[in-house]
Amino acid sequence: EIVETLLRFFDLSTCLKGKKALVTAGGTQEPIDPVRYLGNRSSGRMGYAVAQALQEAGAETILVSAPTDLPVPQGVTRVSVQTALQMRDEVLARFTDVDIIVKAAAVADYRPAVQAEQKIKKDGSGRTLELVPNPDILAELGQKKTAQVLIGFAAETENLLANAQGKMQRKNVDLLVANDVTKEGAGFGSPTNIVSFLFPDGRKIDFPQMSKLEVARHLVKEIVNLLGMNVKE
Amino acid sequence: EIVETLLRFFDLSTCLKGKKALVTAGGTQEPIDPVRYLGNRSSGRMGYAVAQALQEAGAETILVSAPTDLPVPQGVTRVSVQTALQMRDEVLARFTDVDIIVKAAAVADYRPAVQAEQKIKKDGSGRTLELVPNPDILAELGQKKTAQVLIGFAAETENLLANAQGKMQRKNVDLLVANDVTKEGAGFGSPTNIVSFLFPDGRKIDFPQMSKLEVARHLVKEIVNLLGMNVKE
Repeated sequence: EIVETLLRFFDLSTCLKGKKALVTAGGTQEPIDPVRYLGNRSSGRMGYAVAQALQEAGAETILVSAPTDLPVPQGVTRVSVQTALQMRDEVLARFTDVDIIVKAAAVADYRPAVQAEQKIKKDGSGRTLELVPNPDILAELGQKKTAQVLIGFAAETENLLANAQGKMQRKNVDLLVANDVTKEGAGFGSPTNIVSFLFPDGRKIDFPQMSKLEVARHLVKEIVNLLGMNVKE
Repeated sequence: EIVETLLRFFDLSTCLKGKKALVTAGGTQEPIDPVRYLGNRSSGRMGYAVAQALQEAGAETILVSAPTDLPVPQGVTRVSVQTALQMRDEVLARFTDVDIIVKAAAVADYRPAVQAEQKIKKDGSGRTLELVPNPDILAELGQKKTAQVLIGFAAETENLLANAQGKMQRKNVDLLVANDVTKEGAGFGSPTNIVSFLFPDGRKIDFPQMSKLEVARHLVKEIVNLLGMNVKE
């Protein structure tokens, strides 16, 4: 098994010792009223796997997580949020203190303009929901970042590479994990994923279908490289 | 413990033998595009507990479930759906064949008028989402029902009893489980619930806070009564 071989060569259990990592995971929920929300189909599994792999590699790892029923990986600290604005606050508050940021969360691009305090009663007719844009956390981090390694995710349903390359350049990330969520065995709720790693220099690594934890361990290997650390190879 | 005492008197392991039950659970998801959806905050826990209690009481139990990570209770058959329209189809297809229907799912009242085939790209400006009403499955079942026992749930955030009594009469249900989801220890995601059982004759039973499985077992006792079965008491 490739990953097992890598583990033997890299000694992933210590190579991020002394580093601090922040991972976002899950899909934010934007309340319409106390009962209804705008959501998106992220299960949180990819982000939780990344947090586990970073922790296994020795990094002190915080997981800023939108609602999910997944168990917190051992040794990882979870901070629970619901909305994009809450996630932004928690990430920005910790940003300057960490070495590695992996934004695996699916953050809602829009939220309802008005949030009703009581459950909206239905009246049988149509209605219109006014939406306003949420801040772009990844772009904001890309602007602010100094020495941090910043990893983004791009879930696309069409024109995967063009959209992902554009996203990486606009947002100043060091590595973008791109996946086509319409593929069988990739994306939402699946235990496996089919991803490509894209780099600002134009490099692209395509992976076959593998478990999200295996993807996460490959990602940790690249993070180690990006941090410029000496790795026995 | 009250429930344990009831269990001893009622012999809940056999009293629904030969009966067929259908339970709906979870919150439907109404897609906006392949990634985003309109959701609601049901965890599915109450419905799964009801399915477990019905199965324990001997009923052949089918669970029509919106997306959730909960394990299927042993002996229960799960049919997975995502949207309100899919849930309606699965429930109506089985309706004439069952003796007991418990509608614990939180079904979206509205769905987006248009579902985009590809992920909608954001452009930084506001936008408007047009919504159209979904069919009212509970009211439809109330109109069609013959000998079936029909149980509804009412999650309210204000005017709980007035809203719930009105709902019961409009929808021709035999018992309505009402809970105020704003209370601590009640409703979404909580392992416990604080409910009242309302009956068409005006009877009302208020329960203290208890686990959702205990609520489910009290509900099974009332279902046995509603079916007019002979219970050792």
